Amino acid sequence: MKKIGIPKGTRDYSPAAMARRRYIFYAIEEIFRIYGYQPIETPAMENLDTLLGKYGEEGDKLLFRILNSGNFLSGLRDGELNKTDSSGLATRICEKGLRYDLTVPFARYVVQHRNEINFPFKRYQIQPVWRADRPQKGRYREFYQCDVDIIGSNSMLNELELIEIIEKVFLKLGIGIIVKINNRKILAGIAEILDESSRLTEITTALDKIDRIGLSGVIRELKESGVSRAAIERLQPIVSLSGSAEEKLEALSDILSDSSEGIRGVQEMIRLFDYLNLLELKSQIQLDLALARGLNYYTGAIIEVLASDIKIGSLCGGGRYDDLTGIFGLDNVSGVGISFGADRIYDVLDQLNLYPEEVTTGTRLLFVNFGEAEERYILHKILPYFRSTGIPSEIYPESTRLQKQMSYADKKGIPYVALVGEDEVRANTLKLRNMETGEEKYLSKLEAINLLRDG
Amino acid sequence: MKKIGIPKGTRDYSPAAMARRRYIFYAIEEIFRIYGYQPIETPAMENLDTLLGKYGEEGDKLLFRILNSGNFLSGLRDGELNKTDSSGLATRICEKGLRYDLTVPFARYVVQHRNEINFPFKRYQIQPVWRADRPQKGRYREFYQCDVDIIGSNSMLNELELIEIIEKVFLKLGIGIIVKINNRKILAGIAEILDESSRLTEITTALDKIDRIGLSGVIRELKESGVSRAAIERLQPIVSLSGSAEEKLEALSDILSDSSEGIRGVQEMIRLFDYLNLLELKSQIQLDLALARGLNYYTGAIIEVLASDIKIGSLCGGGRYDDLTGIFGLDNVSGVGISFGADRIYDVLDQLNLYPEEVTTGTRLLFVNFGEAEERYILHKILPYFRSTGIPSEIYPESTRLQKQMSYADKKGIPYVALVGEDEVRANTLKLRNMETGEEKYLSKLEAINLLRDG
Repeated sequence: MKKIGIPKGTRDYSPAAMARRRYIFYAIEEIFRIYGYQPIETPAMENLDTLLGKYGEEGDKLLFRILNSGNFLSGLRDGELNKTDSSGLATRICEKGLRYDLTVPFARYVVQHRNEINFPFKRYQIQPVWRADRPQKGRYREFYQCDVDIIGSNSMLNELELIEIIEKVFLKLGIGIIVKINNRKILAGIAEILDESSRLTEITTALDKIDRIGLSGVIRELKESGVSRAAIERLQPIVSLSGSAEEKLEALSDILSDSSEGIRGVQEMIRLFDYLNLLELKSQIQLDLALARGLNYYTGAIIEVLASDIKIGSLCGGGRYDDLTGIFGLDNVSGVGISFGADRIYDVLDQLNLYPEEVTTGTRLLFVNFGEAEERYILHKILPYFRSTGIPSEIYPESTRLQKQMSYADKKGIPYVALVGEDEVRANTLKLRNMETGEEKYLSKLEAINLLRDG
Repeated sequence: MKKIGIPKGTRDYSPAAMARRRYIFYAIEEIFRIYGYQPIETPAMENLDTLLGKYGEEGDKLLFRILNSGNFLSGLRDGELNKTDSSGLATRICEKGLRYDLTVPFARYVVQHRNEINFPFKRYQIQPVWRADRPQKGRYREFYQCDVDIIGSNSMLNELELIEIIEKVFLKLGIGIIVKINNRKILAGIAEILDESSRLTEITTALDKIDRIGLSGVIRELKESGVSRAAIERLQPIVSLSGSAEEKLEALSDILSDSSEGIRGVQEMIRLFDYLNLLELKSQIQLDLALARGLNYYTGAIIEVLASDIKIGSLCGGGRYDDLTGIFGLDNVSGVGISFGADRIYDVLDQLNLYPEEVTTGTRLLFVNFGEAEERYILHKILPYFRSTGIPSEIYPESTRLQKQMSYADKKGIPYVALVGEDEVRANTLKLRNMETGEEKYLSKLEAINLLRDG
C-alpha cells in the first residue's frame, strides 16, 4: 500500500472530534447571537498585497503563498530566475496567500464594504487560518479562530459587552477563568514617564513574558534592549502594584499624572471596572499591569483569558484598536474585538473531562436487518415514522450476521437497537434493546418513539 | 485610498448571505443526521501526491499549489531553474495543494483511518473546495460542497437511502425536482453490444451533453470520436427508449442479453426501482439512459438532480464507486455518494423567491440608548433577562441621536425597538415599538419577553 498522509501540522477530524468541536462552536456562536452579532465569512485566499506587512517580518515568512496558476514563469525577466533570491522570486510567482488570521481580512472586508455596512458593525467569524509555523504539541499549521468584533463605535460599553460574552461562554462550557485586563494607553503612559517612549515595544514585549520568565527575566530583557537602569527601577513598583483594580487605578492616577495619554487610559479603565461592578460578573477579573499582548495594533483596553484550573496559556484575547482599517486607507474607525482559541478550549475540556456525555452526532436507533421481507416492512412501515419525529435512525444495509450488526451499533455508540423479525412483523411490534443495560422490551411503534424522544 | 479587493472567483459572505447559506446547510445537515450520517472534516491542504492524477490532466492544471515555505529553491539543481518548464518547476517547489473536491480527500481519509473506522461508514462533509477555473457567472474558484457517502457496503439500500435523502432535502427547501438515474454497467453493456467497448468514455462523454446539444449533437460528437456508423444507428433507439423505468428495463433486458455486465446493471436498476416504488416518493424519478456523469470512478448507479421549475443545471449528483479507495491501495471497498451543490441551490432559492421570511441571523430587540442613567438601568436590570430567555437583544452602544439609532435598527432588520427613558425607568415599564407597523405599546419586562418569544 502506498504511503498516505496529510501535510504536517494539519488534522483530520473524525466524527467524535467533530462532535466535540461543534459543541464548542455552537456554545460560542449561541452567545454571540444572543448579543446581536452576525456571522460573515471571507475567502481562504487573500491577495498578498492585503496580507504582507501586517504581521511583522516574522509573520510574512509564515504566510502560505499560492503559486499563480497557468504558466507562472511567463512574465519573468531572465535575471529574476535565480537561485539566490527565493523571497524575491516568491513575490513574482505568487499573488495570493492563505489568510493568517481573521483580523486583517476583517479590516479589509470593512473597508471594501464600508458603504453597505450598518455601523456600529457587530460581526463574528469562525473560520480556519493557516500559518507555516514549525508544528509542535498544541500548535498547528491549520487551526480555527472564533473572532467577535464591534467596529465603528468608541463606547466603552463594547469592551464591557465582550467581557460579558467571555463570562457567558466559559460559564456555558463549565471552564473556570481569570480575565486579565490592561490598557495600552497606560503602558504608553508608563513608558512616557520613564522617558522610554521610544522603547514602548521592547517594554511591552518583555512584560508580555512575565508569566513565563518572571520579573527577573523581564528585567534582564529590558536591560538587554537598552532600557535605562533608572527606568527599570521605576518600572518595578508599578508592575508590582497590588490591591483591587480600583486601588491600582488610583495609584496610577498619581504615578501617571504627567502623561495625558496614561491618564486617559486610567480613566477608560475606571469606567470599565465601574461597569463591570454593576454587572456583578462571576469570573475573576483582574487589572494586570504586566499584560501587554504582542500585537501592535491595539490602542486601548487589552484582554486576555486564562483557565483558572489548568496551566495551558491563553484561551481568548483581544482588545481595542483605533486604526486597524487605516492600513487599508479608511481612518477614524475604532473597533474592539476578541478571539477565542478553539483548539486550546478543546484541550481544556478534554483534560478536565468537561464534555457532557450526550455530545455525539450519532444515530439513536439501529434496526437490525434480518432479510428482505423484514427490510421492506421496516423501510415502508417503520423507519419513516421515527425519522419524521426527528429521531436519527437507520437500518443496517445488509442482512449479515447479527453479531456484526450489533458490533456496528456498539462501535457507533448507538444507544438502542430494534429487532424486528418475522414474529414482530406479524405482531406489529418491535423488540427494543437498550445497548447499555442489555434490557429488551417489546413495544409498539408509538411506545418506542416516545421512549426514544424522552431519553 | 489604496485599491483593495479579493482574488477573482472568490467571495465575501455578508451577514445576509450567511443567513441564507446557513438555512441551506442546516436543512441539508438535519436530513443527513436523521439518516444516521456523521460529519468529518479534512484539511484544506493535501499533499500533491494525494491530489495529482485523480482529476485527469485538465484537473491537475486547475489545482491551486502552495509554495513550499522557507527557502523553496534550496533543493534545486542548477538545470531545474529554467523558464521553459513551469510545470516541472511547480512540482519541485510545491508539495501541497488545496483540495479540489471532497471525494478524493474522503478516499484518502478512509484508507488512512481504515483501522479506526466502523464500516459501513456513513459520513457527510461540508467544506469549501478550490479550483483555478476561469471565473464566470455561477462558477467560482472557492465554493462549498456538501457530500454524503456510505462506504463499505454493496447493498442497493444505500442508493435507495440517498435518493430518499435527496427527496427530503428538496422537499424541505421547497424546490421541485427531477431525479435522473442511470447505471454505468448499463452504459458499459451498451458499448459492449455495439462493439465499441474501447470507446465507452467517448460515448458517455457525448451522451452527457444530450440536454445541451440534443441527440443530433451527440451523434456528431460520436462520429468525430470514431464511433462506427452502425453503432451510432443501433445506439439511437436505445437512448430514445420511452415508457416507465420498468418498461425501459424490460426492453434493455433483451437488448443487453449478450452483455453480462449490462444485465447486472439492469438487475440493479430493477431492484432499485422496486424499492423506490415501495417508498412512494413524491419527486419525479426517471431512468434516463442518456445520463452519463463525467467522472470515471463511477461503476454502478449514477444519479443527477435537476430543478423542475427553472433551468439551471444539476443541483446534486453522485453514484456508486466500487474502487475509489483503490487509488490509495485499499481494494474492494465499495461506496456510494452524492454531492449537493450549495451555490446552485442558493441561486434557485433566490430566483424562485423560496427563502422563508424569517431567515435572518439578527437581533430581535434593540434598546435605544438615552444616556448614562438609562444605560446603567438597562444593562443591570433589563437586558440580562431578555438574553437569558434566548432573545437576541442589544443596546445601542452610544447615546447618540434617536434617528441614528432607529436607522441602525431598521437597516439591521431588527423587528422591535425598546425605548426606556426617564419615565419608563421610574414606572418600571418599557415602550416597545414594532418597527414594521410603527405601533407602540407600554409593557412590563415580562410582557415584552412573552411577546418577543412568541412572535
